[in-house]
Amino acid sequence: MSSTWSNNISFSVFGESHGAAIGVCIDNVPPGESIDMAKVMDFMARRAPKKDGTSTMRSEKDTPQIMSGVFNGKTTGTPLCAMIKNTDQHSQDYSKLSKLARPGHADYTGALRYRGFSDPRGGGHFSGRLTAPLCFAGAVAGQILERRGIYVGAHIAEIHKIKDTPLDPIKTTREDVIALRERSFPTISEAKGQKMIEDIKKARECQDSVGGIVECIAVNVPAGIGSPIFDGLENSIAQLIFGIPAVKGLEFGAGFNAARMLGSENNDEFYVNDQGHVVTRTNFHGGILGGISSGMPITLRVAFKPTPSISRPQETVDYSALKNETIAIKGRHDPCVVPRAVPCVEAAVNIALLNHMLDYPNF
Amino acid sequence: MSSTWSNNISFSVFGESHGAAIGVCIDNVPPGESIDMAKVMDFMARRAPKKDGTSTMRSEKDTPQIMSGVFNGKTTGTPLCAMIKNTDQHSQDYSKLSKLARPGHADYTGALRYRGFSDPRGGGHFSGRLTAPLCFAGAVAGQILERRGIYVGAHIAEIHKIKDTPLDPIKTTREDVIALRERSFPTISEAKGQKMIEDIKKARECQDSVGGIVECIAVNVPAGIGSPIFDGLENSIAQLIFGIPAVKGLEFGAGFNAARMLGSENNDEFYVNDQGHVVTRTNFHGGILGGISSGMPITLRVAFKPTPSISRPQETVDYSALKNETIAIKGRHDPCVVPRAVPCVEAAVNIALLNHMLDYPNF
Amino acid sequence: MSSTWSNNISFSVFGESHGAAIGVCIDNVPPGESIDMAKVMDFMARRAPKKDGTSTMRSEKDTPQIMSGVFNGKTTGTPLCAMIKNTDQHSQDYSKLSKLARPGHADYTGALRYRGFSDPRGGGHFSGRLTAPLCFAGAVAGQILERRGIYVGAHIAEIHKIKDTPLDPIKTTREDVIALRERSFPTISEAKGQKMIEDIKKARECQDSVGGIVECIAVNVPAGIGSPIFDGLENSIAQLIFGIPAVKGLEFGAGFNAARMLGSENNDEFYVNDQGHVVTRTNFHGGILGGISSGMPITLRVAFKPTPSISRPQETVDYSALKNETIAIKGRHDPCVVPRAVPCVEAAVNIALLNHMLDYPNF
Amino acid sequence: MSSTWSNNISFSVFGESHGAAIGVCIDNVPPGESIDMAKVMDFMARRAPKKDGTSTMRSEKDTPQIMSGVFNGKTTGTPLCAMIKNTDQHSQDYSKLSKLARPGHADYTGALRYRGFSDPRGGGHFSGRLTAPLCFAGAVAGQILERRGIYVGAHIAEIHKIKDTPLDPIKTTREDVIALRERSFPTISEAKGQKMIEDIKKARECQDSVGGIVECIAVNVPAGIGSPIFDGLENSIAQLIFGIPAVKGLEFGAGFNAARMLGSENNDEFYVNDQGHVVTRTNFHGGILGGISSGMPITLRVAFKPTPSISRPQETVDYSALKNETIAIKGRHDPCVVPRAVPCVEAAVNIALLNHMLDYPNF
Repeated sequence: MSSTWSNNISFSVFGESHGAAIGVCIDNVPPGESIDMAKVMDFMARRAPKKDGTSTMRSEKDTPQIMSGVFNGKTTGTPLCAMIKNTDQHSQDYSKLSKLARPGHADYTGALRYRGFSDPRGGGHFSGRLTAPLCFAGAVAGQILERRGIYVGAHIAEIHKIKDTPLDPIKTTREDVIALRERSFPTISEAKGQKMIEDIKKARECQDSVGGIVECIAVNVPAGIGSPIFDGLENSIAQLIFGIPAVKGLEFGAGFNAARMLGSENNDEFYVNDQGHVVTRTNFHGGILGGISSGMPITLRVAFKPTPSISRPQETVDYSALKNETIAIKGRHDPCVVPRAVPCVEAAVNIALLNHMLDYPNF
Repeated sequence: MSSTWSNNISFSVFGESHGAAIGVCIDNVPPGESIDMAKVMDFMARRAPKKDGTSTMRSEKDTPQIMSGVFNGKTTGTPLCAMIKNTDQHSQDYSKLSKLARPGHADYTGALRYRGFSDPRGGGHFSGRLTAPLCFAGAVAGQILERRGIYVGAHIAEIHKIKDTPLDPIKTTREDVIALRERSFPTISEAKGQKMIEDIKKARECQDSVGGIVECIAVNVPAGIGSPIFDGLENSIAQLIFGIPAVKGLEFGAGFNAARMLGSENNDEFYVNDQGHVVTRTNFHGGILGGISSGMPITLRVAFKPTPSISRPQETVDYSALKNETIAIKGRHDPCVVPRAVPCVEAAVNIALLNHMLDYPNF
Repeated sequence: MSSTWSNNISFSVFGESHGAAIGVCIDNVPPGESIDMAKVMDFMARRAPKKDGTSTMRSEKDTPQIMSGVFNGKTTGTPLCAMIKNTDQHSQDYSKLSKLARPGHADYTGALRYRGFSDPRGGGHFSGRLTAPLCFAGAVAGQILERRGIYVGAHIAEIHKIKDTPLDPIKTTREDVIALRERSFPTISEAKGQKMIEDIKKARECQDSVGGIVECIAVNVPAGIGSPIFDGLENSIAQLIFGIPAVKGLEFGAGFNAARMLGSENNDEFYVNDQGHVVTRTNFHGGILGGISSGMPITLRVAFKPTPSISRPQETVDYSALKNETIAIKGRHDPCVVPRAVPCVEAAVNIALLNHMLDYPNF
Repeated sequence: MSSTWSNNISFSVFGESHGAAIGVCIDNVPPGESIDMAKVMDFMARRAPKKDGTSTMRSEKDTPQIMSGVFNGKTTGTPLCAMIKNTDQHSQDYSKLSKLARPGHADYTGALRYRGFSDPRGGGHFSGRLTAPLCFAGAVAGQILERRGIYVGAHIAEIHKIKDTPLDPIKTTREDVIALRERSFPTISEAKGQKMIEDIKKARECQDSVGGIVECIAVNVPAGIGSPIFDGLENSIAQLIFGIPAVKGLEFGAGFNAARMLGSENNDEFYVNDQGHVVTRTNFHGGILGGISSGMPITLRVAFKPTPSISRPQETVDYSALKNETIAIKGRHDPCVVPRAVPCVEAAVNIALLNHMLDYPNF
């Protein structure tokens, strides 16, 4: 089921980049939850193209309309469908591309998978635009979680080797999380953020692009949510995170660095803190043990490849004629997807957490 | 659903480390596939404790018995259930642990999730022993794939900072894959393997443990399998890989390194090769674009943390009494899970690939 | 998942009777299938209120708009979302009902299930209006099936004890099926149809309503589709059919009458016919054995209760105040849902058959 | 997924009639529930062949062994797998049948579905024996429900036109339900039961078989469980009930008779009773409105066809040679499956109810 994620919540993303609309249908949202549309719009605005030169110059005014599942401002519990009409489409930019496989894109693989019938305009259903409904769903899930004290935030941890200060996996607070959201270019170190912006602009000038890493944290997740083996928090987060285009890697807690540590270094010793809670002194486990939350902040890092759309000429094939060709991708593209991917990562984590919270007694 | 993965194939792992049996029930296996039990046993033997000092000294004779779904040596198409009886259990080793949370283990989180009723003996359902039924299923899936020319193999890419030669993401052949399986300590460079063995032994002598990275490759996967968004090859592989205990990270193709590259470096240019196939000159995308196979080898790397069971004293809590305690984990443990995890990673990839191959026309 | 059916196809119905829109999101539709919208509209028109006095006088102009999943008139293979805007809403008719449980309706049970937050206007998500997106999906599925020669049709077998001639479970042809669709009041015997119409009108005059039975047939379904136990054709059809409001019973083949027969009467003997096909002399099994199609026509009968909305006064409760009350349901209601339910039954069968046909080799 | 039902609970039935074992793997059973194995055996004994001449003379000693998911007599919350070894197999009875399609059986359809690889011995996975693991799961679910006051019982409502007194859909108590279980031939009227037994014996003497109807009731189900559209109580019960071999029809409440009633007769008027509960004066709706429980007893009737295995000669085909043949089914068969089907119907209802109860606050 390409675009349906089904667990406690079922959640279907639909639409094509240049079709009539994109949207999402979410089933099993808990009833009686207020939806603050202004806050939803704030969340989605963080995914919109930046005005600082790091994004495409397209203006995507993505206003989700709720078609169902909300009555008198509150969720009904029956399916919540939201739709975003596509408006600023420049299909002509893509018309010649239809048979040339853009390197790093899914044009060729999508055409094979769907026997030549997938919508080729702007990547069709494979477009990064499909993260807009993801963000809508994540914004809704986030409001429900925040009402229970759970906050999820993320920052740009790295752009093309320039590293931001990492999040503190123990002391990060809900206020830190909120502060991050208010930054138009969400880094912890403003200086590093400035360097990253310069690097992205430079890449654009060179008709090139850069990648990066998003680090995400969830604070105040109660201990005991998730499940072992295939239905743990990592499994659900992973399945959703790899639904964001350009993601190439995912790690929790110490992640790949854990592979370089001794057990005596990496084990997080437990103790009972002053409030009588079981906590750990370090948090290399990233808040998840055996697929289940430990009560410590949940931390993860997501690697994004550089935007595959670059305007310099590249070798490729015409996959219908099986002929070698050269391609120069015109149009307006993000020289780096990472700044706009920050809320997408948060959205995926919000959805996964809400999903597992539904098993929590008295949620 | 803690232990059921359901996609084209549904696949339920059951059992506890010290219960009557562990096993797996697989639904929707294609009918008419021969199962070579000797080969299954070879696959599972690679997961068994090593005799080279890098593993536990327990002898786990894991002989799966097929209870259903195979008739006259061939799959029937109806559910295939296999069971492995638990025999070499030393429950007394664990009896005192039942209320002390072993650091890095799921004792505490599992007790919360299951309100104190999860089986605490040897980690219960959270035990690494549950990878035995995963390997059984993976071995069966592998035989079905190999009959279609698809081979999946893996090696120990890194142990505690000691790195093996990486796999060639373009030129690796089915013969290379098979050769790796025949090595009792599967590295490409024998010298590096020897160093790793020394390092693991040293960790054990120090009452410590080490982690590492497994690199996996799948060759001859046809282009066009998988789906966009939530049901791509990465999503399925991720959901299964994070079902292996101790996994903390996963990357495909260039993975986290892609985040440090320019688009012009990372994009894999397409061309039509001498056989008339569309291929790429480089393979930073790891054989997957938009969740769908490109026909290039599929490559991934999986980070494992050091074994959390170490015999040196550690601080912890008695989670029933909410009291600080010290723990020294006795019993026989692997100082490093990575060598035994190699076939587990292959198994997860085999299952994910077979699952998506079922959508392939004329499979 | 209230409104999502997930099997080979995943299919989510959304919307409330008096909300912004109702619709459906269908995942895993095969790619490259032409959608003839005129035919879709014909199918949906059969569900629209009749002009013969047997239906509500509301005019529901239900024009589905395709939001995604169709490009150049053909399915893309990615999610197909269609939406029907709600226009002719008379919410005021229902305003006083919001706390009075209409007998035979889901007002009370829905309020409990969704803790008082379900949309009460016109039944909200529980409304019969939600069969419009079902019909859309069924119309699309039907076009895909007919392209493979499979035709599904239904007639009004019974209204309030008046019985139509039954369908021949052996000889019914695709032409018979098509002919039924062209009748505005689909009975086989026109005379019986006339009697039924009179009976329905009489019920309306008496401020009452009547129920009935729809009989459905699918011809040219190839033998060998479906699965044993929980995923057979009966299971799928049943799960979808019981998604139509007012359905109280379902039987396949001889159904409840089979319970009154001897095995020697009910067993359908096989023989090889002149074309070399395995067929049965009788068809009490209704074309399904062990959950799998036998190649004989698939036959089923669906019982509908009388419309619960009747305008004569009824005793009921105010479920918020837990007080006894009297209710007289005003507004415009169908005195019988059966004529409009005919395409709904076909739609459910179409979807179930398409779903299982996707397993069929070379579909 | 032929044999996996997945909702809040996932539940996989495996095995073949003459294979090594049959069994069931249940995921998401609530933790901490005592399992009384003696009561489980009592439940299963009701499915065992009767000694009164109405059943096969095979002795099936079906002793389920719990392989996982129970520790110290209580459920752990992780998958519960139980296995029943096959012992009393007489494969030779079936050896010649392997290519002759037994009329009314799934031999032919199963062979097509699984391309000739399904296990033909005794019906393989299509055998009625697979209801033994269903009964195990149902017995476990029943114990969990009874601890919350919910009791499910059933009786033989009809055998070959001989009708038992129907259950009172309003006044039936938990004691009535328990009393039914204690009857070896569960009818309400003993005299009618005696007539039925005679009728079944007569059918056997005539080398024939008879069918019948099971009526089932669930008392004390709280109002508000279930969901609209595709995930209601009717949908779940239907999907499970049609998993029992020989079922041809299912109706809830007034069922097919509702189709013959006026709305004013069939609508169940609500009132607040002396205890302050919302109840209905009649119960034609069978305790379910809009897929959700109303708090009234849930009632349903299930039609079973006569056992297809009869020993008199029947026409059939050799489906491998496409040749007409005659078959006389030897071996020991039930002349009527209905008495043994009573606990199977209860089991299916228990599982469906437990499944939906998991959504109930504070379950």
